[in-house]
Amino acid sequence: MEPEVTHEVFRGRIFTVFRERWPGFDHEHDVLRHPGAAAVLPITPGGDVLLVRQFRPAIRQTLAEIPAGLLDVDGEDALACASRELFEETGHRHETIEFLGGVFTSAGFTDEYLHLFVARVTDTPQADPEPGLELLRRPFDELVTSARSGRIRDVKTALALLLADARGGVRPVG
Amino acid sequence: MEPEVTHEVFRGRIFTVFRERWPGFDHEHDVLRHPGAAAVLPITPGGDVLLVRQFRPAIRQTLAEIPAGLLDVDGEDALACASRELFEETGHRHETIEFLGGVFTSAGFTDEYLHLFVARVTDTPQADPEPGLELLRRPFDELVTSARSGRIRDVKTALALLLADARGGVRPVG
Repeated sequence: MEPEVTHEVFRGRIFTVFRERWPGFDHEHDVLRHPGAAAVLPITPGGDVLLVRQFRPAIRQTLAEIPAGLLDVDGEDALACASRELFEETGHRHETIEFLGGVFTSAGFTDEYLHLFVARVTDTPQADPEPGLELLRRPFDELVTSARSGRIRDVKTALALLLADARGGVRPVG
Repeated sequence: MEPEVTHEVFRGRIFTVFRERWPGFDHEHDVLRHPGAAAVLPITPGGDVLLVRQFRPAIRQTLAEIPAGLLDVDGEDALACASRELFEETGHRHETIEFLGGVFTSAGFTDEYLHLFVARVTDTPQADPEPGLELLRRPFDELVTSARSGRIRDVKTALALLLADARGGVRPVG
């Protein structure tokens, strides 16, 4: 299905907004076109999760999150993106990486699609974490308990924890 | 913390975009200010979940979702919003309603905050569902199985199912 009318009303560095008229609706829709994103829950051999805490201008506060980033606009593979962001943000490389699922983050206004992964990562980093990011290590079980009680405020982190837990959590490699 | 510079670059019906300069960043941020939203997982006495399927212009396809809507711009209470959307979209009223948690849906570019609830609802509707919405009934356990395996594509629906399941799922009223 295609819009009857669409025109660009804002173009930014990350996203573009279009105003569209669709059949069956009595008002126009402002839709935000987003390149998509990938996020990865990194679990160490000892059962710790790596999180990055950073200041997020959009919410005007810091947030602890699993590593994540935008898909490159030239159609980067989501797994490659997750692997790249893991290394860039934490300095750790993955030993195994597994797809958990994909979700639309807010289908009312954006086509952002988020690909979630879980990775078994090396215990020690091969590089420094990205500047501006604080690297945190927390036990997987402790974070799952927080997620299950609704205390994880970042949606990708909450959902990845619950999906990884549903798959049996920290499984042995191999 | 406040931006050094902020100015409005787009104002739409639902959201507004600001371009901001923040200390510590070498580029400007385009941030989308959003009124916030509430969503509710409605469970019938027989253990069915009510979903609404609708065409979503932003993703150019239909999506099955739990009832949800924007907080009124004058600062509507999230529980009142969830209750209102439940009735407007499905025609069912809640008997009990419980907070599951709140999440930022995409903190990289928007302050959208989503409040999630689970409700025990009446078995029969008191009104017709909203025009343009198709009302679906699916067993809670079946949807939880889908959510756990990463097959629910709407983030609020996936997370609400997993959070409600973590709390013991369909509990008796009273």
